[in-house]
Formats: sequence, structure tokens, C-alpha cells
Amino acid sequence: MRNIAFGLLGVGGVGSTLLNLLNDEIVRTEMAARAEVLFRPHLLADRRGILAAAQGLGEEQVRHALEAKAAGGSVGEVPGGAPAASLDDVWAALRDLGGLERFILVDATASDDTVPLLLRVLDAGGCVVLANKRPLTGEWGDFLQLTASRRCRFEATVGAGLPIIRTLQSLLDTGDRVLSIQGVFSGTLAYICTALNRGERYSEAVRSAMQAGYTEPDPRDDLGGIDVARKALILCRMMGHSIELRDVHVTSMIPSALEGLDLPAFLERLPEGDAEVEEIVREAASRGVRLSYVANIGGEVPVVGLHEVLPDSPIGRLSGTDNIVVFHTTRYRSAPMVIQGPGAGREVTAGGILADMVDLALCMP
Amino acid sequence: MRNIAFGLLGVGGVGSTLLNLLNDEIVRTEMAARAEVLFRPHLLADRRGILAAAQGLGEEQVRHALEAKAAGGSVGEVPGGAPAASLDDVWAALRDLGGLERFILVDATASDDTVPLLLRVLDAGGCVVLANKRPLTGEWGDFLQLTASRRCRFEATVGAGLPIIRTLQSLLDTGDRVLSIQGVFSGTLAYICTALNRGERYSEAVRSAMQAGYTEPDPRDDLGGIDVARKALILCRMMGHSIELRDVHVTSMIPSALEGLDLPAFLERLPEGDAEVEEIVREAASRGVRLSYVANIGGEVPVVGLHEVLPDSPIGRLSGTDNIVVFHTTRYRSAPMVIQGPGAGREVTAGGILADMVDLALCMP
Repeated sequence: MRNIAFGLLGVGGVGSTLLNLLNDEIVRTEMAARAEVLFRPHLLADRRGILAAAQGLGEEQVRHALEAKAAGGSVGEVPGGAPAASLDDVWAALRDLGGLERFILVDATASDDTVPLLLRVLDAGGCVVLANKRPLTGEWGDFLQLTASRRCRFEATVGAGLPIIRTLQSLLDTGDRVLSIQGVFSGTLAYICTALNRGERYSEAVRSAMQAGYTEPDPRDDLGGIDVARKALILCRMMGHSIELRDVHVTSMIPSALEGLDLPAFLERLPEGDAEVEEIVREAASRGVRLSYVANIGGEVPVVGLHEVLPDSPIGRLSGTDNIVVFHTTRYRSAPMVIQGPGAGREVTAGGILADMVDLALCMP
Repeated sequence: MRNIAFGLLGVGGVGSTLLNLLNDEIVRTEMAARAEVLFRPHLLADRRGILAAAQGLGEEQVRHALEAKAAGGSVGEVPGGAPAASLDDVWAALRDLGGLERFILVDATASDDTVPLLLRVLDAGGCVVLANKRPLTGEWGDFLQLTASRRCRFEATVGAGLPIIRTLQSLLDTGDRVLSIQGVFSGTLAYICTALNRGERYSEAVRSAMQAGYTEPDPRDDLGGIDVARKALILCRMMGHSIELRDVHVTSMIPSALEGLDLPAFLERLPEGDAEVEEIVREAASRGVRLSYVANIGGEVPVVGLHEVLPDSPIGRLSGTDNIVVFHTTRYRSAPMVIQGPGAGREVTAGGILADMVDLALCMP
């Protein structure tokens, strides 16, 4: 049995779900029986505090931490915890724990600031698993440093638990030439596009996505397309292209009439965007094609935006909130390789993190 | 750079393609740059001979071996080669090579007899990559022994290069509960079913599949469904079920009127099967469903045969010769995870082998 210590940065929805999964008796038993791996949390950290123990945190402590988080508190407030002013404090705690060459640090934050800490862990021989896209979508130099070894994994950054990153990595590793990657990487925008293609108004589609709980609190965080652009950037960079987020060609799904408003005004005036979108939809429908919010990777720079797709293509057939990725390569030229399924949600994202953790654990000496 | 020695059992279509891939300058450069791995053949073996060298075979020697095979000869006839009477001779040659703990033996044969040799390699600390389904579809005990360590990989046995095995492995490793796996694992039968659903006669559909080169020389090797049953068995066994090939419930696509004939008679009398199949197709069409040759894994035993599928389901939308697999799990319950693409062919099969080889190489100490 491999006993692997891990630390968790960010104990929000995804982080909590990961801890709950790893506390689940069935999951632990299966992982032990099949992969012969046992993961034990040695450190939890949020913006305000740290909870760490060199011998590993007990189930009780983890439960207290989850309760503290659910009540809006910090893991640092739990018995044994400590306040933390910065990620330097987290690094100090990690160094105190020791044994970093058999340690995995999971970044489940949405922070831009974790790169120096992640690099320190990698430099010390440790492993890193990212659900956080930001470390990989900052400067190209950061991406290069983080991915220089195979000890940084990031399956959950694109399509949550869908095996997109590992499949692309494997195609590249085996010398296949990736000609293009087309994908739908936002379940929210897929849902809205499905509604638009059905003839719903833009305002209705956005509101129904909000009511179904598919959007961020500010739906423009989805509609703007930046999250999709980050995912496209990660895939593009994996292919070796030294481009920056600002190079990605993003067209948002926010109609021009609604730009520059504050959130209440945006929500109230949503119907003012209907006409602009309706024209695009009608134009597409008149030619028998559908609209989909697609990331196209393969040319000079990734292109992200509303695209026309054939109804009978893999992307055109997509419905609901599924993500999809379509790989055209030298080996998959006549017909592409396609991976499809739920690409967001706490459980599948935690599953993607766990898959990376197991892979890393199985490769540890 | 990791220099990894490998041996190849079976230098037929897939084996030759693998050697050609590994001799391809672009592929080698990419693999070296990305995965920092360099594979070098140290042994080639076919039914009649062995070509081996402790320092690795030169490109020239490999080319000669490929030429000998293309001309119907044996690798043993190439300068430096030797005749071989049995797999014991191959084992003797492997032992002479030494260094098995950093060695990968690829089984690209269609032989039932390689299990003892494969187990010897694994026992000696070596790695095994299978494109050959038979070692995993013999006795349950063999399957258990072969898969006891993670040093035996077999991505290419199901869906060629599609990431089906590794995805299932990862779901199981991370404690997800697989509720069901539905799949189309024969491009040939997918092609024939597409034709039947379009209204073609059975005899026409089979003949056009033969003309397109999609069938085995005796098309009943496809139509009988045993190859699909083997794939279903592998997936089912991975889930921990101790079942045998004879337990798989297979319904063939050979109409009863055509059973027990020799090949020429079967081909000549194909139209005699049309009526039986036509009735099944008409019955399905009358209810608005389609027919697909599906493997269903999830109940007591895998069920393989012609099934009715909804036209709007992932399997119902399949066309051409694509394979598809649909995973329903605890985490992917509301919407499944789907992987689709070409599931046969020399190049994608060699790609699947290579993916396993890289994974193993990256985990070697």
C-alpha cells in the first residue's frame, strides 16, 4: 500500500467534495484494493488559515474543517489550526511537514497567486495537481516551468473529469500530429446555445440558465468567454505554442447593447440584447446550421466564440450541458477522436483531481 | 532521456506499423522532446524465427526484417536472426538480452499461447503491452496474474488507440462505481448496421463491407461477434468479475439459414439470410428505433448482440465504422461519459500500443 500525503489549497466547493470523496469508505476501499493507494490530508489551507499535521489530519479534524468552511469560517479556526497571512505561511508549513518528495499539493483555488508556491513544491521534488486554471494561463514562462516535469498534472482544468488533458498529452507523447482541436468547454454556454437553437430568446435562455444554477453569480463570467479562452489556451500551450491569454481571439456572448453595465442593470436590461442575438440565430437557421460556443485550436491562435456548426456533426448534435472535444490528428484524420460528457460540477471535478493524484502516486518510487 | 528496450512478438500489420512509427524521424523527435523517451527494438519474433541484439537492433536490421516479412518470410532469416521452434526460444533470447526490469515486451500476435512467456517477463520485473486480446480472454486466473501489477497494459485491445482502457481504469482507481458500459466495439458491424438501418439488404451490407476491406477474410469472424465478446469480457473483468468467455451472452449476426456452411457456400447463399434480418430491421423501424451491434456490460454477464437503440442516443447517432463507449457511473449518472472514434486500423492500434509504452517508460525508475 502506498500512503501518500497531500495538501489542499482552497477548501471551497471542489476542495470540500474532494475531502468528502477521500473520507468516503467505499471510495477509500476501492482505491486501496485497486490502486493500492491511500491518500491522507496533511495540510488544508484557505485564504485566512492553515490546518496541518505532520502525521496527517484525522477524520475528525477534517470534518471540523469542513464544518467551519460551511459556516463561512476558515480552516485556521479549527483546533490545531493557525491563521495565515500569505502563501509564504503555507510554504513554511509545508516545509515543516517534510517528505515533499512523496507529497501532492492540490490547487483548488481560483487564485492567480499560487504559482510561486507550486514551483517551490515542484522544486522540492513534490507533485502538484491543479483544478485551478490560472497558474497555467498566466505568463508562458510560468506554464513552461510548471509543466517542465511530469509532476504537475491538470486534468480537472479542462472538462473536469473527462480525460481530455491526458488524451492530448498521450497523442503528443506518441508523436501524433494534432491538426486541430474543436471543443465546447462551457456547459453553461452549451445550455444557452441549445435554447437559442430551439428558438428561445437570449434573455430567456440566460435567465433559465441562471435559474437552473448553471451560471456563475454574475452570468457575464460565463458569457464573456474568458473561462473557455483559458481552457483553449491550456490545450494550445500543451501543443507547444508560446501564446498568452490576450492572444486568444475571444468573442463574448454579451450583446453590444449590454456592455459596460453593472450587474443589476445588465440583468434588468437583458431583453435589449435579444434582437442582436436573434438576427444571428435566424441567419444560421436559414442556412440549416446551428450555433455553438466553440473553441477552435489549430490555427495561429485559438479562436473562441459563437460558431456555426453542422447539425449532424459531433458538436452540432450536442445538447444539454455536456462538454465535448474533437481531436483531428494525423492518426485520427479521416474520423476524429471525440470525448464527451459533463464537463463541470463538483463531483466530476474532484474525480479529475483524484485521477491525477492516483497517476502521480502510482509513479512514485 | 530514457532509453527503453523493447521486444515485439508478431511482426504482422500492427507490429510492422509500430516499427515504422518508431523509425519515423518526426515521431522519434517528438517523443524524445516531449516524453524524453527513446524506444529501441532489441528483439523481434514471429512464429518461425527471432532477431535479437543485446545492444539493440539497428535501423538497417529492422528494415531488413520488415522486408522479409513483407515477402512472406521470417525475421529469423535476416542476417543476425535465428530460427525459433517455440516461445521457449524467445524466452531464452530475452534472458540473454538481460535488463528485463527496463524492458517492454509487446504482444501483437493473435496467439493463445503467449501467456506463459508474458508472465515470465512480468515475474522478471519487465513490462508487457498487449494488442493481443487472447491472453486476457483465456482463463480468469491468467487475467488475474497478468494484471496483478500495473506493468501489463492493454489499451489497444479495446477500441485500438481510443483511451477506453485507461479511462475505465482511472474511474475504478478513483473509487467511482461503474453502473454500466455500453459500447460498439466492431467498426465492421457498425458499418453493416448503418447499412441495414438505411434499408439495405443483409447480403448487400455484408458484401459492401467486404469490398470496402472492413471484414476479416472470412466475414463470419466479424459477424459471429466473438471479437466483440472478447472486448466486453476484458472490460467486465477489469471491473472485477470472474467470468469466462463462454459466460458472455453472444448473439451472432449470422442468420440461422446460413449456419454451418463452408465459406464459399456462405458467401454464395448470403441472400438466403436477407428475410430473417429484414424482419428484425422492419420491426425496429416500425417503432422508430435503430439497430446496433452493442456490447452491454453491467448486469450479471456481458450481453453482446443486435440491440435496438434510440436514434437520438450516442450509440443511435453513430455512423460509419466508428467505435463508441458510453460509461454510466455514480459520478457520470445523469449524463454519461462518451468516447468515440476509429477503433480499428493499423495506425491507431500501433498508436495505442505506443501510448502504453510511453506510460510504462515514464513510470520506470
